[in-house]
Amino acid sequence: MIHDAFQQMKKQLGQLDKWLEAAAAHAVSKKIDSKNFLGLRLVVDQLPFSFQVQTACDTAKLAASRLTGKDAPAHPDTEETIDQLRARVRAVVTYLDGFTAKDFETANTRSITQPRWEGKTMTGADYFREHAQPNFFFHLTTAFAILRQHGVPIGKRDFLGPLTQHPPK
Amino acid sequence: MIHDAFQQMKKQLGQLDKWLEAAAAHAVSKKIDSKNFLGLRLVVDQLPFSFQVQTACDTAKLAASRLTGKDAPAHPDTEETIDQLRARVRAVVTYLDGFTAKDFETANTRSITQPRWEGKTMTGADYFREHAQPNFFFHLTTAFAILRQHGVPIGKRDFLGPLTQHPPK
Repeated sequence: MIHDAFQQMKKQLGQLDKWLEAAAAHAVSKKIDSKNFLGLRLVVDQLPFSFQVQTACDTAKLAASRLTGKDAPAHPDTEETIDQLRARVRAVVTYLDGFTAKDFETANTRSITQPRWEGKTMTGADYFREHAQPNFFFHLTTAFAILRQHGVPIGKRDFLGPLTQHPPK
Repeated sequence: MIHDAFQQMKKQLGQLDKWLEAAAAHAVSKKIDSKNFLGLRLVVDQLPFSFQVQTACDTAKLAASRLTGKDAPAHPDTEETIDQLRARVRAVVTYLDGFTAKDFETANTRSITQPRWEGKTMTGADYFREHAQPNFFFHLTTAFAILRQHGVPIGKRDFLGPLTQHPPK
């Protein structure tokens, strides 16, 4: 089931790629440089749009790596354009594509830590549910909100993406 | 595991209650009416703060109801104050408290629909992962962002709440 949750993260990153495409098109229609989006914030003491995208990517990527013991590709935070952000998003989608349900067999009971925790640990199940998943949606939604606030024509359906629905019987 | 995901939603609603408390305190310190928060939006064509709180509540409540077949309490969207929004949040926390893991035993394979789907259905597993959980975090994070943008002193730790961490060995 944790593998399914990563499939959903992958889907959400695919949606993020579409919002970035819409932002680039919006910049063209407004005759502005799409780089302007990267520094936007909802409030002055918030990290900028580029950080929200980078952190959504890293949260998914590092959670998959920590919960499976598989190395993650390095992504220094050097993106300066929408296209470079899109490339990063797609690199993480490709990375997540490489996992099978079997890779997560021991995920729930793994002992997880990260540098800023100063040696403290969480079980894999707690880490995923309490930390990785809420953080992922937090940065994803914040990125969405910044684009929405600055006129990019995206709405709730673009947030969710297509649903696996079955026709009436 | 779906029951654990609802425990996390319950925890996140508990955090939302704390943000609302911080908003009320912020209004006092600014000598303004805390009701002012209910109509705030990040962008003019967005539904207001009160709606974001109501919808986070309803998403959790109705998902638990649909996935278990248990009736949910009705909450007409009549809140006009922060205290009334807090009461609604806490009513949903209490509702979610009433579920056990056993209640969700058939959740994944249930056929789920809702009025606006015009007879289309989703499996319980797909509905929870693709619809309920992303929607919940979407409205929760949007509510958080609106408060942040208007000066309520809350940050990422207030979003996540306390983590189940273990001391270094």
